[in-house]
Amino acid sequence: MEDCIFCKIASGLIPSQKVFEDENVFAFRDIQPMAPTHILIIPKVHHANLTAMDKADQTLGGTLLHMANIIAQQENLDNDGYRIAINCGPWGGQVVQHVHLHLLGGRELAGELG
Amino acid sequence: MEDCIFCKIASGLIPSQKVFEDENVFAFRDIQPMAPTHILIIPKVHHANLTAMDKADQTLGGTLLHMANIIAQQENLDNDGYRIAINCGPWGGQVVQHVHLHLLGGRELAGELG
Repeated sequence: MEDCIFCKIASGLIPSQKVFEDENVFAFRDIQPMAPTHILIIPKVHHANLTAMDKADQTLGGTLLHMANIIAQQENLDNDGYRIAINCGPWGGQVVQHVHLHLLGGRELAGELG
Repeated sequence: MEDCIFCKIASGLIPSQKVFEDENVFAFRDIQPMAPTHILIIPKVHHANLTAMDKADQTLGGTLLHMANIIAQQENLDNDGYRIAINCGPWGGQVVQHVHLHLLGGRELAGELG
């Protein structure tokens, strides 16, 4: 997608603090972190949101979730704990219209989920 | 797991407001909802948390995420939007030690993710 900032990050057109990359997935640090560790995990293929991605490709969500787990271990978040959040649509608080998983950790997160 | 409240809910030993059930997945309404719609999606097989589940079965996370999407549509959350959250471990805010996805919607959720 020409106008998508996350497509540009995944392709390297816009620089980012890359954490992980393979054929299908790109992960980078959020530039406005809500926690000491705050990483965004995205598919390289553009899908506007979780609903659209799940309709187009049922397996990609599992791939992203698995990679989030791998990264949580690489970042040493798995002992103390972490949270994965996916915002979908306006009421979900989705800001960038390219599906992304938030991986948060490094401090005790609040119990409220929104 | 004998002592696990979510295993007992999934098997019907403890009653719940069931939303969905198939061979692998059980979904029910949270008894302390944080939003007008707050549904928990769990695997029937016991895994203490997301890390443990992902290590034991890489595909189950994708199945749960896909079912969360299906349920979001059934609950008419997909137009306005929704959030999926997975708390893992103490700092993630995980309360019950049986992996579960939170599906929240029905109002505009706060931007903070914890």
